[in-house]
Amino acid sequence: MENEEVVLLDFWASPFGTRARFALALKEINYEHREEDLSNKSDFLLKTNPVHKQIPVLIHEEKPVCESLVVVEYIDEIWPHKSPLLPLDPYQRATARFWADFIEKKICSLETRKVWTGKGEEQEAAKKVFVEGLKLLEGELGNKAYFGGKNIGYVDVVLVPMYSWFYTYEKCGNFSFETECPKLAAWARRCMELESVSKSLPDQEKIYEYALQLKKRFGFE
Amino acid sequence: MENEEVVLLDFWASPFGTRARFALALKEINYEHREEDLSNKSDFLLKTNPVHKQIPVLIHEEKPVCESLVVVEYIDEIWPHKSPLLPLDPYQRATARFWADFIEKKICSLETRKVWTGKGEEQEAAKKVFVEGLKLLEGELGNKAYFGGKNIGYVDVVLVPMYSWFYTYEKCGNFSFETECPKLAAWARRCMELESVSKSLPDQEKIYEYALQLKKRFGFE
Repeated sequence: MENEEVVLLDFWASPFGTRARFALALKEINYEHREEDLSNKSDFLLKTNPVHKQIPVLIHEEKPVCESLVVVEYIDEIWPHKSPLLPLDPYQRATARFWADFIEKKICSLETRKVWTGKGEEQEAAKKVFVEGLKLLEGELGNKAYFGGKNIGYVDVVLVPMYSWFYTYEKCGNFSFETECPKLAAWARRCMELESVSKSLPDQEKIYEYALQLKKRFGFE
Repeated sequence: MENEEVVLLDFWASPFGTRARFALALKEINYEHREEDLSNKSDFLLKTNPVHKQIPVLIHEEKPVCESLVVVEYIDEIWPHKSPLLPLDPYQRATARFWADFIEKKICSLETRKVWTGKGEEQEAAKKVFVEGLKLLEGELGNKAYFGGKNIGYVDVVLVPMYSWFYTYEKCGNFSFETECPKLAAWARRCMELESVSKSLPDQEKIYEYALQLKKRFGFE
């Protein structure tokens, strides 16, 4: 399958885009990376994702796949042999999908984004949901090396891109990820030791600078 | 697999519970149905879904599966032979998952619930999202009998439970589903001709009565 065309429409700071980038890195797939300007989206993005008009879009053999969780499952189904992400057992698959959905709803949601965009009570409420969510994830991780067990799995791919944003959440939300969730912090560091992760994830300081620019531009301050 | 224990924690009016009920009906699975009182949730519900504390929960061989989309995929994976829901082709699977996710975000969301709980501008904004969402789904349906093609598929299972609520949305939101989306209305009627659907879905009038009670109780009026 080496000559099949794979294109990814992406944006460097997006944790959703990072999921797709990371999954492709794990599978060692060669692809064309196209960076989108989100304030001036390309016609190709609007054409390939007319419903949500958002990245990531994976175009494989001229067919677009949209929404990051759907993209990651698709990548896993198309290239199943290298670094399988979802387990084979239906109950374990359901558990992985449950936690991926949880991360969407409680860690990457518009609500918890208020940890860095919000103020006062609104920010405190978002922080509570966010930190409680991380603690639940830490409980699910338990003593495993990764959510996927001995190897990176679906939940790791879905969660680890948020690590690039944790510094921003900590600085703006005034809390310590390491203090609140030491085991999850150790998991994040363990993930970062893998080249597929460290190469796919944007730098925390750069994300923080970008977040401050956004706060200024959209008047969050 | 006839003697394996299957229990469903459900609530009659919930479109999320209805998805699980309908999928089990399609697969012709015998199960124990336990109706929950959502104002006084059972210890068993709190124990089996400690994260969200919501129905539906499917307990299969003593292991709980939560979140309706995850439950439906699990049912499809455990009992794949009768009425397969997700197609085998990865691209078609991704497309089905994309639209299921779309239904979650645009048709069954807290935002679009304001079509029947909201007032004034808030209600109008919700109605716009809801009706535009239905039109996009109608476009995806095209000239197919079902979203799954000639047979009921995953997207049908995810969407059709909302049909029980459409009368409530129409009455409270002052619009006609039939006028706005005639092809989707024909699809819903076609689904209702199937015994597995008509037996699983609550009556539209009963849902409307229930919705009016909720509006009164929670002061939406």
